[in-house]
Amino acid sequence: MLSRYLDGRERGLLVPAPEDDAAVWNGDRFVVGTVDTLVEGIDFRLDWPAFDWRKLGRRLMAINLSDLAAMGAEPRHALVSLCLRREMKSSDVGRLYSGIAQQATRFGSTIAGGDLSATSGPLTLTATLIGRVSSAGRLLRRAGAKAGWQVAVTGSVGGAAAGLRLLEARRSPRRGAEREWVRRQLDPEPRVEAGQALVNAGVRVAGDISDGLYRELEKLTVPGKLGATIDIDRLPLAPGLAAADWKLGLAESEDFELVCAAPPAIMNNAVKSLNRRRTPLTVIGAVESRPGIRLRRGGLPIPLENPGYQHFR
Amino acid sequence: MLSRYLDGRERGLLVPAPEDDAAVWNGDRFVVGTVDTLVEGIDFRLDWPAFDWRKLGRRLMAINLSDLAAMGAEPRHALVSLCLRREMKSSDVGRLYSGIAQQATRFGSTIAGGDLSATSGPLTLTATLIGRVSSAGRLLRRAGAKAGWQVAVTGSVGGAAAGLRLLEARRSPRRGAEREWVRRQLDPEPRVEAGQALVNAGVRVAGDISDGLYRELEKLTVPGKLGATIDIDRLPLAPGLAAADWKLGLAESEDFELVCAAPPAIMNNAVKSLNRRRTPLTVIGAVESRPGIRLRRGGLPIPLENPGYQHFR
Repeated sequence: MLSRYLDGRERGLLVPAPEDDAAVWNGDRFVVGTVDTLVEGIDFRLDWPAFDWRKLGRRLMAINLSDLAAMGAEPRHALVSLCLRREMKSSDVGRLYSGIAQQATRFGSTIAGGDLSATSGPLTLTATLIGRVSSAGRLLRRAGAKAGWQVAVTGSVGGAAAGLRLLEARRSPRRGAEREWVRRQLDPEPRVEAGQALVNAGVRVAGDISDGLYRELEKLTVPGKLGATIDIDRLPLAPGLAAADWKLGLAESEDFELVCAAPPAIMNNAVKSLNRRRTPLTVIGAVESRPGIRLRRGGLPIPLENPGYQHFR
Repeated sequence: MLSRYLDGRERGLLVPAPEDDAAVWNGDRFVVGTVDTLVEGIDFRLDWPAFDWRKLGRRLMAINLSDLAAMGAEPRHALVSLCLRREMKSSDVGRLYSGIAQQATRFGSTIAGGDLSATSGPLTLTATLIGRVSSAGRLLRRAGAKAGWQVAVTGSVGGAAAGLRLLEARRSPRRGAEREWVRRQLDPEPRVEAGQALVNAGVRVAGDISDGLYRELEKLTVPGKLGATIDIDRLPLAPGLAAADWKLGLAESEDFELVCAAPPAIMNNAVKSLNRRRTPLTVIGAVESRPGIRLRRGGLPIPLENPGYQHFR
């Protein structure tokens, strides 16, 4: 059972679920909830060169923790449902559990409950994360950006996409940079602390870019109502990527980073605050009243035939 | 999107998830959380004679609502993750969504958030249900039964198992009783109101019997420490079942009923309270200090070669 892999933090629960039909915990005033699923063959493959069950468990938690991060929320409780094949080795199941428990513990979440099902098909792993914010106003949302605000992104972009290319080509990473790309794909680090720091710095508009930076920019600018211009030269590409690889960072990005928008003075605070936490926050462009996402390189516009993220797929 | 199928109750949410990375809601003091998954081919089959997408959606919610019922909790919020095949007809997806939304609305829950994934394998449907109880002591738990207490079960037993037999034999139900058995398998009604009524009547020990009444009795009596004797004659078998079908009710039961234990005076209150709500609550036996589950029929013990629910599988 998953509970064997959990530390004493679980004692914060009033009733842990394995003992009863459901878990019980002391609630918070403002609750944030999200659910995400990883499907074998679509979100991961067992025959990837660097595949590791523990990392898969950590990634399951990371995709959900990243959603909480994008709201500026603090993780509290997780409920995990795993559909596994009967022929899976119990040592592999143990490694998967231990990765889940490790990531929960690291980010201050309990594993409140779980469900284990047999499947004859692809492994299907679902986690629900419950977090909290201190008030209904002190959180990050997609809506609310205004023309003239700056747009910035945490950490670096393009590494996860570059890692995925190596994995899909069944190539083991050789250089240090390649190993880091693969790590960003297989074992991404959710920006939980950065999300809360953005809120504390006064930022209120953000989203996570695990579906692609371009796509998330479209959501933040409310399609048809606002727009943005992004300076390709300012994109914080992952170490080892060439400037010509910018599309990896803008479109195919599966990086677990946050993109945010704020007035320049607030953004300035946010950059300082995140830098103190050793997380880069890089201004990459500005929100504009003209609808659409525009790209600029060396001060010149890059023409797009069909604006929209589909352009890059 | 699932949100299209939801009614105004959703407005109770501060932030519904489709708009943002996660949902936000006003929290409760004592929270109850559970997760459960339905896997195609194991928990349901598309080629069952009476298969219906709307009922499948309702059943997904019902398995989780039944876990909340077994804690005496009130449903509040649901997060739903669906793994569907791309070739699924959109009208079928719509029916599945509408069944989920229907059941959520009926039992007072929002659909706070969701995730949709593609799968090449069996459909895999997961719901997380968040509920509340009024205090950490006013809830139903498995632990705590004492020798001398009565054991009782809500509603009737055996119908869902009888329905499953018909479905697995690809037999369409003919008689009214058969239709009701199949309904109990495909479209079970979680005992949400009954669970709360049990708590209000003073009951504190209960569990749901969707894994089988015998198995749940073992959990309630704490294996090795307590036991129980069950009068087979008193089992409230579903209408249409013969007395000889008692094993369907005791062992293979997938009925969404609750079994509880309480001192006779409290049980008496509980029976009256549930009867006022038109839910039968039937005393079927007693908790004893001697470990093990014993069966009695016509006042005589029924010998079991290998005690334990495996006996029946």
